[in-house]
Amino acid sequence: MSQTYKGYLIDLDGTIYRGNETIEAGKRFVERLQEKNIPHIFLTNNSTRTPQMVVDKLGKHGVNTDVTHIYTPSMATAEYIQNQDIENPRVYIIGEVGLYRSLLDSGCIYDPISPDYVVVGMDQDLTYNKVKKATLLISNGAKFIGTNADTNLPSHEGLIPGAGTILKMVETATGQKPVVMGKPEKIIVDLAMKQLQLDKSDVAVVGDNYNTDIMAGINSHLDTILVYTGVSTPEQIAAVKDKPTHIVNSLSEWEV
Amino acid sequence: MSQTYKGYLIDLDGTIYRGNETIEAGKRFVERLQEKNIPHIFLTNNSTRTPQMVVDKLGKHGVNTDVTHIYTPSMATAEYIQNQDIENPRVYIIGEVGLYRSLLDSGCIYDPISPDYVVVGMDQDLTYNKVKKATLLISNGAKFIGTNADTNLPSHEGLIPGAGTILKMVETATGQKPVVMGKPEKIIVDLAMKQLQLDKSDVAVVGDNYNTDIMAGINSHLDTILVYTGVSTPEQIAAVKDKPTHIVNSLSEWEV
Repeated sequence: MSQTYKGYLIDLDGTIYRGNETIEAGKRFVERLQEKNIPHIFLTNNSTRTPQMVVDKLGKHGVNTDVTHIYTPSMATAEYIQNQDIENPRVYIIGEVGLYRSLLDSGCIYDPISPDYVVVGMDQDLTYNKVKKATLLISNGAKFIGTNADTNLPSHEGLIPGAGTILKMVETATGQKPVVMGKPEKIIVDLAMKQLQLDKSDVAVVGDNYNTDIMAGINSHLDTILVYTGVSTPEQIAAVKDKPTHIVNSLSEWEV
Repeated sequence: MSQTYKGYLIDLDGTIYRGNETIEAGKRFVERLQEKNIPHIFLTNNSTRTPQMVVDKLGKHGVNTDVTHIYTPSMATAEYIQNQDIENPRVYIIGEVGLYRSLLDSGCIYDPISPDYVVVGMDQDLTYNKVKKATLLISNGAKFIGTNADTNLPSHEGLIPGAGTILKMVETATGQKPVVMGKPEKIIVDLAMKQLQLDKSDVAVVGDNYNTDIMAGINSHLDTILVYTGVSTPEQIAAVKDKPTHIVNSLSEWEV
């Protein structure tokens, strides 16, 4: 298969690795991009890791890269808030270290009393009290932002609750829908594209999950490459109306 | 106002008390029922208190009663599970003491490894790990029961998340809807009616909340008395299609 793209936005879990397992064809795809100096950004929906943690994780899978090639929903949230032109934006956070670092490093002030924003992401230390606090703050006027709406995450124990389940709990308690950053939303793709500095017609989104990766491309009017090494299956894709631009069984089929 | 009923199912919060405040007309209504020996049951959507705790709470508001006059979603859950004719039913529980006591006292065995049921109610000590465990157990085949679907609870801090927000988080993670016991569901009313031992045509449901109390009566084909001392307002009732059978500003207007 071949169609020339000048750049790629590449998903991680299910595309480059599957949990702790390396997807060799994904890894070689990245190496081929690196050999030809083709611009690319790893675009993940994981808000819990800092960019350096993502680089380290990729390194364990034999993919050598740096933080300039990483874009996360936590980075998107920080950039989104900075773009709102509120001086010294104040935030209450439900999330893990990746989200805390992105928001605080970008100049947000942590304020659990009267924040401008309540930002909610994946949090394995979630408690009722955090949700209660978020609920009361949003009811008092704080804006509700979600890093990503994934309902499930794969784990060695099975599919476990993702950030989307926490968003839904807060949404049910407040009656308010969050502004969501992560794939399939346009926001994170547009922000990652700013970093890539290429025309939309020259870039493809690569990923294994139709509902997040491919829909993100479709919502942002980018071409898409679906790879069957993760979540989505040929049976599921047969049933969808908007097909991916390209479909491969493995990224070894994709010429760059 | 008057229409004769032989028995009453009476809501608590918003009807007899409002948080720590006694609703005097509600208290006197109960005293009039007691003077005339008119059968009645206090039918609450609160799963966190044991029946004795509910009796003690009513006592603090000057309403003297006993556990035979109390029916809770936790009691309904225990009775519902016993009615399924599974020998030694095994349960995993997200909830507080009222739910634990009802289930364990009725013969359920606590089993966080391979339960027949995952029962979810209000839990101010909710953690991500409890939701994760519930999600994995339900995905492995355990049946999903919710005590009640209230999205909010009044508190001195404002409206805080109710059991319904926890149910929604588990539902979002599992893709499965729970069987719900509490008002407005028919289940809890039918079980309380078994205890009252009267014909449906002779009993009225009394409460302040159209969406739970009155809808429970409507769903169970019982007459209803809405009282404007709590959640619902005349403006809201003007907009609903199925009106309560009777509406009073205060229960002092209701002759028994």
